[in-house]
Amino acid sequence: MRIIFLGDVVGRAGREAVFSSLPFLKDKLSPDIIMVNAENASHGFGLSPSIATALFDAGVTVITLGNHSWDRRDLISHIEKEPRIVRPLNYPPGTPGAGFFLYQFVDGRKFLAINVMGRLFMDAMDDPFRLTAELLQKYRLGVTVQAILVDIHAEATSEKWSFGVTFDGKVSAVIGTHTHTPTSDHRILPGGTAFQSDAGMCGDYDSVIGMEKISAASRFVKKMPGERFRPAEGVGSLCGVFIMTNDQTGLAEKIAPIRMGGLLSQTMPDF
Amino acid sequence: MRIIFLGDVVGRAGREAVFSSLPFLKDKLSPDIIMVNAENASHGFGLSPSIATALFDAGVTVITLGNHSWDRRDLISHIEKEPRIVRPLNYPPGTPGAGFFLYQFVDGRKFLAINVMGRLFMDAMDDPFRLTAELLQKYRLGVTVQAILVDIHAEATSEKWSFGVTFDGKVSAVIGTHTHTPTSDHRILPGGTAFQSDAGMCGDYDSVIGMEKISAASRFVKKMPGERFRPAEGVGSLCGVFIMTNDQTGLAEKIAPIRMGGLLSQTMPDF
Amino acid sequence: MRIIFLGDVVGRAGREAVFSSLPFLKDKLSPDIIMVNAENASHGFGLSPSIATALFDAGVTVITLGNHSWDRRDLISHIEKEPRIVRPLNYPPGTPGAGFFLYQFVDGRKFLAINVMGRLFMDAMDDPFRLTAELLQKYRLGVTVQAILVDIHAEATSEKWSFGVTFDGKVSAVIGTHTHTPTSDHRILPGGTAFQSDAGMCGDYDSVIGMEKISAASRFVKKMPGERFRPAEGVGSLCGVFIMTNDQTGLAEKIAPIRMGGLLSQTMPDF
Amino acid sequence: MRIIFLGDVVGRAGREAVFSSLPFLKDKLSPDIIMVNAENASHGFGLSPSIATALFDAGVTVITLGNHSWDRRDLISHIEKEPRIVRPLNYPPGTPGAGFFLYQFVDGRKFLAINVMGRLFMDAMDDPFRLTAELLQKYRLGVTVQAILVDIHAEATSEKWSFGVTFDGKVSAVIGTHTHTPTSDHRILPGGTAFQSDAGMCGDYDSVIGMEKISAASRFVKKMPGERFRPAEGVGSLCGVFIMTNDQTGLAEKIAPIRMGGLLSQTMPDF
Ligand SMILES: [Fe+2]
Ligand SMILES: [Fe+2]
Ligand SMILES: [Fe+2]
Ligand SMILES: [Fe+2]
Ligand SMILES: [Fe+2]
Ligand SMILES: [Fe+2]
Ligand SMILES: [Fe+2]
Ligand SMILES: [Fe+2]
Repeated sequence: MRIIFLGDVVGRAGREAVFSSLPFLKDKLSPDIIMVNAENASHGFGLSPSIATALFDAGVTVITLGNHSWDRRDLISHIEKEPRIVRPLNYPPGTPGAGFFLYQFVDGRKFLAINVMGRLFMDAMDDPFRLTAELLQKYRLGVTVQAILVDIHAEATSEKWSFGVTFDGKVSAVIGTHTHTPTSDHRILPGGTAFQSDAGMCGDYDSVIGMEKISAASRFVKKMPGERFRPAEGVGSLCGVFIMTNDQTGLAEKIAPIRMGGLLSQTMPDF
Repeated sequence: MRIIFLGDVVGRAGREAVFSSLPFLKDKLSPDIIMVNAENASHGFGLSPSIATALFDAGVTVITLGNHSWDRRDLISHIEKEPRIVRPLNYPPGTPGAGFFLYQFVDGRKFLAINVMGRLFMDAMDDPFRLTAELLQKYRLGVTVQAILVDIHAEATSEKWSFGVTFDGKVSAVIGTHTHTPTSDHRILPGGTAFQSDAGMCGDYDSVIGMEKISAASRFVKKMPGERFRPAEGVGSLCGVFIMTNDQTGLAEKIAPIRMGGLLSQTMPDF
Repeated sequence: MRIIFLGDVVGRAGREAVFSSLPFLKDKLSPDIIMVNAENASHGFGLSPSIATALFDAGVTVITLGNHSWDRRDLISHIEKEPRIVRPLNYPPGTPGAGFFLYQFVDGRKFLAINVMGRLFMDAMDDPFRLTAELLQKYRLGVTVQAILVDIHAEATSEKWSFGVTFDGKVSAVIGTHTHTPTSDHRILPGGTAFQSDAGMCGDYDSVIGMEKISAASRFVKKMPGERFRPAEGVGSLCGVFIMTNDQTGLAEKIAPIRMGGLLSQTMPDF
Repeated sequence: MRIIFLGDVVGRAGREAVFSSLPFLKDKLSPDIIMVNAENASHGFGLSPSIATALFDAGVTVITLGNHSWDRRDLISHIEKEPRIVRPLNYPPGTPGAGFFLYQFVDGRKFLAINVMGRLFMDAMDDPFRLTAELLQKYRLGVTVQAILVDIHAEATSEKWSFGVTFDGKVSAVIGTHTHTPTSDHRILPGGTAFQSDAGMCGDYDSVIGMEKISAASRFVKKMPGERFRPAEGVGSLCGVFIMTNDQTGLAEKIAPIRMGGLLSQTMPDF
């Protein structure tokens, strides 16, 4: 299976990077799955139903979220009707939506998208390791599903790497989000799971994690309420990873980063 | 000026990556300066005087530290005698050592190394932004010093990027450390400062941020005292960045990541 | 039922305050239950099996713990054999020991002791609210058990108060521990549950939360490794609360603080 | 000198407790100074200029703040004109207002009010210990000022106690705020400084730290945006401490808590 995963889409710059690049990426990489973390797609805070719809219309298979899941209150009712929008699995029971989405191809193959949130330096959530292990009792890689990708939305690299090594061999890929910074530690772990600490954001990198840089930087110095944060509006970069998995084993065969447009160094998978 | 900066050296795997690669790097990149963050060089915790000496003997110009500065108590007295070992500038007054080191070339050029620590998700320290601004009153880029590199040892990407945009045009480079993960957001900011969120660690990446992976991962699940953490002992990768600055302006002309050996994708600057 | 609850016993000063005061308290208050948080009883860190035994020999009914549960590794095996030592309920499944203890009187009455840990400003644990609610499905106040006391070991007053109002009417008492400071907000909540944010420590108050004051205070200023923390060794105060419950309803009828000996203002319940 | 200090005033319930009780307290305790932390006086968030004025009109000498200092933006310009409103001393240089206020009696005696903020579990601020020590170089207790009271607005009891023992003998009193919970650890430290970890809030205690209890408690369980927090509106308690100092030495001779009205146990100083 050929899977594109794109990191946190931030505001208009991020959305435009995604919408303008997807036709090229579909042509170039022939993805079976396009998975996108869109927790910051609407003005930097949350995801509106209409932007979600636009992403699906553009070919996105499944959307994941994070700590900004509920910044847009209109998503709360929308997520109940739209199972392709996945919020972190480790929200408490009773939280609207679900923490995973099972996509079924017309040929019968199945792809499982999971979204979890880290806990180190973040809000108190249920244990993402235990809940993922429990879910994987039901969905067996290479047996009942052909590929599984986990978006771990977390701050600490130690927690992301711990998650990767814990589920190495049990999922096709563990890809981090939330730091809005692409990492260059992509690799196939010994058990066959593709890993990258963070996919990076889709947005304007002349910024502070996608937000207008002057006001965002001043928060670290001034300790006063400043202007309301708003996304930076320069040309966005698209950031993500591309993974090729084996439909028999469900394990990853290749992983490579994608960086396209905007201010970052450019890279495109060669497979 | 041609500057190599290497991220957190972790344990024996990290040290061997550095010692075995430096001859090649010196030959290949002809660096004027080699700057290394070595806060985890001794068994993953702190820096012993003898390892510091070995690094200097191998050609390192200046060593920086971080939150693990004082894990080795023998460094506390040693740092007073060895100004080339720099601890974060924003420790409180009275802390042994200094937060910067001014290296003078035989031709009179000067290079200023600064180490600061972030505060978001970290211990309460003095303000790294203000102290850096004050220090830069004394050392003026392109006037009294030919190049300035700041190692910002911090957890949050938002704080690192805020630091970069704040000092854009005032220092040659701002390079992050501490997450032990190389990022691929290296670029020259609009004002001429080279930036990368994290240089990445020098160490074994079949691990959890350089430590033996099974015991480190279990800490996130078990909430019990486990085995003592020890560094992973597989083959290490060397991770860092290479920066070329203009001796007239002090600003950066080029920045590129270095990843060499071990499990990560390999990259070497072409300038 | 007449219940004495004593807050975190810290080191020798705390132990001596408890051992020397219990005969008087038993005589004066005729308690049916004596419940003690002893997470710091052994030199300030953890609880040794022998000190636990000495507390039981002195008349203690049940011991609770907290974030220092496992500081003494010899407790890990001991807790499996000694159900009267209760560790926080919201440790992950598989953790040694249990999060509650059911004490049965010879006359058939039952008392349930529960220990939970807060999560705000503390380590990532399972949800203490949900686990307590689940446990209370099984043990019904005024139906199957005659009294229930929850020791909520937590940092933030907001979390403790939230816990109290959430279980108001469902348990006999919610008493906080962990801050090592007695609060004077004891009262019966509208639903009939006795509440006090923190019972206070049993220990020497000429200290920093029970530890030798000079070295403890210097940690906030110096940011260097200091001397190893050790408990203050002056005369200890005993701190706790006394609660009278109705055996029919299980609800609380009276609550009053106990402060005895040492440096604090003295107070003794008059019922 | 006879000093009343009142803890965080929360919303209308807190304000009414203060306004209705002050005539009695003035009559009963004959205070020379009335100092009030009012960071939550306006609907639970910040302090409006008009409420500040009403407090001064009611006899308040000086008002302190905390982490909610700037929740009301109209206070930002007002504080520049009104030196009797004191914000934490350890905001960065350039922050509006001042961290202390020197009150001069008609007979020439002087009282110094200081407000500092803790850093453990709170935002990154400048070092409150060092800044206080520096300020006390200028204002010498028993020499140039007759009494000094520090309001330490902090979360952790360890930090508050560390502050108390550090300035024991150098100020008349160190009184904590911020937890909205009165503590019963009031005492005179060995050097002569009066201390209490927290003065407690002035507000409705049928609440979660003064806010409407159902919505506040649900935040710990639901992890969803809830209703906007609003203060609880039942009858408020007034909480504070009363301190008697020696005008010659500046040291404290007596300290006792005040709890009056509302749901808490009542107590009034007998001196
Ligand atoms: Fe994000
Ligand atoms: Fe996020
Ligand atoms: Fe490190
Ligand atoms: Fe570090
Ligand atoms: Fe404790
Ligand atoms: Fe504790
Ligand atoms: Fe407050
Ligand atoms: Fe506060």
